[in-house]
Amino acid sequence: MDYNKLHLDNILKDMEKDNNQAYLLTQFTNIEYISDYKPTSFAFCIIKDNPIIYASKMDMEIANRDSSIEVKEYEKFETMISEIKEEGIKNLAIEPSLAYSTYEKFKDDFKIESKTYVDKQRMIKSPSEIKNIEKATEIAQTAFRQLDVSSRSETEDVLAFDLVRLMIENGASKESFDTILVSGSNTSLPHAVPQHKKLETPILVDWGAKYNGYCSDNTRTIVYTEKEHEIFDIVRESHDKAIKSIKPGLKCCEIDNVSRDIIKEYGYGDQFIHSTGHSLGLDIHETPGFSFRDDTIIEKGMVITVEPGIYLEEEFGVRLEDTVVIENNARIIGDLPLI
Amino acid sequence: MDYNKLHLDNILKDMEKDNNQAYLLTQFTNIEYISDYKPTSFAFCIIKDNPIIYASKMDMEIANRDSSIEVKEYEKFETMISEIKEEGIKNLAIEPSLAYSTYEKFKDDFKIESKTYVDKQRMIKSPSEIKNIEKATEIAQTAFRQLDVSSRSETEDVLAFDLVRLMIENGASKESFDTILVSGSNTSLPHAVPQHKKLETPILVDWGAKYNGYCSDNTRTIVYTEKEHEIFDIVRESHDKAIKSIKPGLKCCEIDNVSRDIIKEYGYGDQFIHSTGHSLGLDIHETPGFSFRDDTIIEKGMVITVEPGIYLEEEFGVRLEDTVVIENNARIIGDLPLI
Repeated sequence: MDYNKLHLDNILKDMEKDNNQAYLLTQFTNIEYISDYKPTSFAFCIIKDNPIIYASKMDMEIANRDSSIEVKEYEKFETMISEIKEEGIKNLAIEPSLAYSTYEKFKDDFKIESKTYVDKQRMIKSPSEIKNIEKATEIAQTAFRQLDVSSRSETEDVLAFDLVRLMIENGASKESFDTILVSGSNTSLPHAVPQHKKLETPILVDWGAKYNGYCSDNTRTIVYTEKEHEIFDIVRESHDKAIKSIKPGLKCCEIDNVSRDIIKEYGYGDQFIHSTGHSLGLDIHETPGFSFRDDTIIEKGMVITVEPGIYLEEEFGVRLEDTVVIENNARIIGDLPLI
Repeated sequence: MDYNKLHLDNILKDMEKDNNQAYLLTQFTNIEYISDYKPTSFAFCIIKDNPIIYASKMDMEIANRDSSIEVKEYEKFETMISEIKEEGIKNLAIEPSLAYSTYEKFKDDFKIESKTYVDKQRMIKSPSEIKNIEKATEIAQTAFRQLDVSSRSETEDVLAFDLVRLMIENGASKESFDTILVSGSNTSLPHAVPQHKKLETPILVDWGAKYNGYCSDNTRTIVYTEKEHEIFDIVRESHDKAIKSIKPGLKCCEIDNVSRDIIKEYGYGDQFIHSTGHSLGLDIHETPGFSFRDDTIIEKGMVITVEPGIYLEEEFGVRLEDTVVIENNARIIGDLPLI
């Protein structure tokens, strides 16, 4: 199956419904998704009946090599604009993330509205995308098993680094985000940075690998004291029941509710300070997410994290995270136990 | 000297000239620059007579700990908007990089124009910022000296990884961008990705460390064959003469001219496929840059890279890069020879 062509066709259909003749992409992973060419400096991809990518001079070699869409060298903004106008294009859709300064350059020549046509395609992963995420997860979990994290003779930053090295040795191209390997009171910060200090308890590891462009994402917390165990058990119950509750047809916010309600029941609602999960793929954060704000209907083929946490300020935090693929139910990717 | 306060005062003066009552910052490094708090998910910083940061719930612990500006927990967009409006604010400046979807939420309530007030401050580095960049450079160059790159028994990706490890062991918090350690025909791509293959010739290394939030940036190319040496000598001449030509009062584009003209003289103008340099600081790419498009006047305290290159498609490339700080002339940061 030629997925590039399928996605392109779907996007063109959605554009037609909205009477948009062209759709401007500048986000690197959106361009990669649609063309297989991943820009390294900047690029303008114009989706239309005859789609085209204006690539920077320094990218021409890889753009010509990789892109399934016609590529032209970007020379001047004015040239590009007049080439688009010459085709009679008046209505231009843009990505919500487009920089205001770029929008400003287009706004006088086109009727503009922001649309998520590509994000909509990216929500549902193809079998080969799922395989890439599974492989990324396998690499990351193998690396985690090889890391002797509980020895506790090393410092956070060195252990975090060792985990990345193990992922690369196991076949990752890189980490899928800055590895969080932290301990003690540092675990009460959801996005903590590993420090140059010996491990305390608990130990929280939030890590992922990149494979063939695709991300994985997991979190494990290793607990020691009685209180750490108590919090762990609540988070585990929230994690397990949230995953069990996932079914195509439900709204994303309903899963956030399930996960959050359990933590609230135990009196820690105010200490669960983020949403329950996010999609991932070429980017580590994609839509939809298990958030109270997100009423997207869950569909087969979505790949979303479930990661409840409880954060006791200046004390410690516990987070448990798995990535699931939506089939008839939610299937956890990978086989790394929670403890 | 309280630089946060100085920068804030300068920005408020610039805003007053333009009759802007408030300035919205969402870019993480801009918020960090002005407040010392570095967001990890999202934040809205409103610069005004009484500046305020709306931080996400999960960032409240670090925001309260680090920020020199008052912090409030972000709850709802509508609440934030009405609090700003209640102060009688009608004219709102935004960053050029602001996402269109965020602009859209503000545009009906305020008269909006995009402004680079913070970038303007960030162009001139304070003595402590320069010290951080010098330290980052020292760490990166020490790591490079410790790496036995010319042994050539290892693969590109493993050697790239070893270089990052050495930077961290020498005190870096992380690499300042994805390390480029590539060889053979891979060097003809300015933003090449290290591959899992043994080193060929030439070997090109473009790397930098992050220290205390600040970046370093260098490139060295190790050449072997006669043709590689010939191209190297041209790039070195361009690098050296461009640096010698830098003086406060000149325009940035004039330095790009000097560098490019030398490469053109030797007939390789079309193979120098990027601009001559960029500023760096908290971000690896800042303004101004040595580009034909940039007519910013060079001033003391700017920190800019000089990195001419010649790229022979499918053959090889040579790039040489140093970072300079502008004093009466350009002073090269670090002491790593070109060969």
